Amino acid sequence: MPVLKNISTLYTCIDDGGQAEIHPIKNGVIVWIGETIEWVGRESELPEKYQSEKSFDAGGKMVIPGLVDCHTHLCFGGWRADEFEMRIQGRSYLDIAKAGGGILSTVKATREASEDELYEKAAGLLKEIQKQGVTAIECKSGYGLSLEDELKQLRVYKRLSEETVVHMVSTFLGAHTIPPEFKENRKGYIDLVINKMIPAVAQENLAEFCDIFVEESAFTIDEARTIFEAGKKHGLTPKLHADQLSSGGGAELAAEVGAASADHLEQISDEGIKQMAEKHVVGVTLPLASLYTQQPYLNCRNLVDSGVEVAVATDFNPGSAPTFDLPLAMMLTCNHGRLTPAEVLKGATIYASKAINRGEQFGSIETGKSADFLVIDADNVNEWMYHYKGSRMEFGFLKGKQIN
Amino acid sequence: MPVLKNISTLYTCIDDGGQAEIHPIKNGVIVWIGETIEWVGRESELPEKYQSEKSFDAGGKMVIPGLVDCHTHLCFGGWRADEFEMRIQGRSYLDIAKAGGGILSTVKATREASEDELYEKAAGLLKEIQKQGVTAIECKSGYGLSLEDELKQLRVYKRLSEETVVHMVSTFLGAHTIPPEFKENRKGYIDLVINKMIPAVAQENLAEFCDIFVEESAFTIDEARTIFEAGKKHGLTPKLHADQLSSGGGAELAAEVGAASADHLEQISDEGIKQMAEKHVVGVTLPLASLYTQQPYLNCRNLVDSGVEVAVATDFNPGSAPTFDLPLAMMLTCNHGRLTPAEVLKGATIYASKAINRGEQFGSIETGKSADFLVIDADNVNEWMYHYKGSRMEFGFLKGKQIN
Ligand SMILES: [Zn+2]
Ligand SMILES: [Zn+2]
Repeated sequence: MPVLKNISTLYTCIDDGGQAEIHPIKNGVIVWIGETIEWVGRESELPEKYQSEKSFDAGGKMVIPGLVDCHTHLCFGGWRADEFEMRIQGRSYLDIAKAGGGILSTVKATREASEDELYEKAAGLLKEIQKQGVTAIECKSGYGLSLEDELKQLRVYKRLSEETVVHMVSTFLGAHTIPPEFKENRKGYIDLVINKMIPAVAQENLAEFCDIFVEESAFTIDEARTIFEAGKKHGLTPKLHADQLSSGGGAELAAEVGAASADHLEQISDEGIKQMAEKHVVGVTLPLASLYTQQPYLNCRNLVDSGVEVAVATDFNPGSAPTFDLPLAMMLTCNHGRLTPAEVLKGATIYASKAINRGEQFGSIETGKSADFLVIDADNVNEWMYHYKGSRMEFGFLKGKQIN
Repeated sequence: MPVLKNISTLYTCIDDGGQAEIHPIKNGVIVWIGETIEWVGRESELPEKYQSEKSFDAGGKMVIPGLVDCHTHLCFGGWRADEFEMRIQGRSYLDIAKAGGGILSTVKATREASEDELYEKAAGLLKEIQKQGVTAIECKSGYGLSLEDELKQLRVYKRLSEETVVHMVSTFLGAHTIPPEFKENRKGYIDLVINKMIPAVAQENLAEFCDIFVEESAFTIDEARTIFEAGKKHGLTPKLHADQLSSGGGAELAAEVGAASADHLEQISDEGIKQMAEKHVVGVTLPLASLYTQQPYLNCRNLVDSGVEVAVATDFNPGSAPTFDLPLAMMLTCNHGRLTPAEVLKGATIYASKAINRGEQFGSIETGKSADFLVIDADNVNEWMYHYKGSRMEFGFLKGKQIN
């Protein structure tokens, strides 16, 4: 029964009291058994029976829950670095597509890659992601866009979840964009998603969420509603890419279909905010996508002040957010998203867990939760985000085992 | 005579061909003697006489010049983390000042600290900065604002320059803001700067640049012109904080007085751009300050396309840019500043050197320059900035000695 002692401030991040309340404990202690937290409290109140246990020393530093990245596209073929340069040079979308860029180039590369190749690449990336202190991650398909290639991506995640100690959650995103072979037949593609892909994903138990890119240029509200219904029949919970480029009613749809989260939201309407708050849909901000696409950053202040719980994630993908740096996304959410460091910490821990229906399992430091927590070399949560230098993790524990 | 071999691409960043031309050499080799580069070229053309020398292996990775941070306020007392939270909460300037925030709180803390205390703090920060691959740094005074306290800051830099291997350049910034005791007597303070501080700085040989915060809220164009004249008489080259919050003719003044650089420039006028190009004043972009203050980012594209050489720096200071992360500043300059990765690399190496009058000494990899270069774990310069994860330095050399 190990014990972590000598913690300056333990930010437990319990799901109570709103976005800014991170429930600090001065001179805190954590006791755990195997993978599970047994006791959390002040060192002065540590029960006798835990006094003589094997103890780790936090060195007088602060401790937070393991970070949760609740929105990534981890598995993909290829990269698009030269497209990055071309966009900065102001080259047109057509130019970039001709030079082999754009999302369809990632679809092509993902289709061409074998499951083993994709697995090796994703596993390497996940190792780097874990080093930042990320202890749980959500991963989407959506670069296959055919029955076999969507299943291939999701099987990569299944294999990863069996190999890694990181908590993994998989999402089916067949409705990411219309693939080239269905360019003139979008109804045909939507039928494929509904009648072939969703049943197959459910059959193999490869995902628990169904995500859709809801946007004028992708899938309409009506199309999305139909796909979500099919997903729900097969046990897949809705999730949305919504209101990124235009206020198209995506947030309202999220509330209507009982989505776990609506993500992006840069152009969310006031009505959408109200409905998300009422229906307890978590809003996920993805500031790295704003950074890389020069779209406006989401002002999260409005959402929080209206009662929406806001999570922070990376959107890691090879096009619009080619970095998996969750601490950077958090700092951007302070500066451009106008949330305080405490609010952002809650957004990257317990609220991120809630966005993937794992609020009962991890994301906060309390009895019964997974023993996932990080020792951070900072004076306090304000100093951590203000004097930014990455995650500043000294070491941590994931399912009770030491990491880094 | 050591040799660095097995370099995929060597970006020499020679000062020729404009902002985008970083002079790549495939399969490059660097030979150096002591602190100085002896030979640079293709491995296939390596002269016989260097063939058998002690060689280092770059592991097939890319190599760049050591990074140059040409604008920092490295030495200061205290931090202002809680002010960061208060600003996000929308608290007023008066509230923040009452709670002990704002620039004057840094002045107070700097005055209260001893030279030894300031030295220890700055030395610790410099060690961390060096780990990112920064091999040269410019450091400003400006938090003392009294004769003794300005000299104290500059003496810290002098001591640092004697202890560290990093190239250091010092700048006198007495005209940073009007100190509280001169609130009702700005002429009195300017007289002090001109008649006491500048002569004393020159006497002790403590700085080679005179910087002024030229802004409606700080020092006017006319005041700045007078101070620069006094500085020049004592051998101090002008540098400016200019056009950050309003287009106040700062860039034009930089051209008029022959400044080495004009920094910030978010609100620069077209006329200012034209004059800086004509007079070869380097423009220094400070995107971290835009990030932390929610001011617009400088669109560097306009400057580069008009013939201004643009350098990238951190502006590291405890208020408006409390991070020393130069690679992050570079990536922000790609995304929000609209420069390509190649242009940004030139901006953080040779053009940054030129901004501090060191273009002949370091900032590029060529015969006769200081042997400062970094092995970077990236495929090429585009991939490096696109798939952002910090500096990605594997190891490097500074004045010919291995670092990290
Ligand atoms: Zn996404
Ligand atoms: Zn500055």
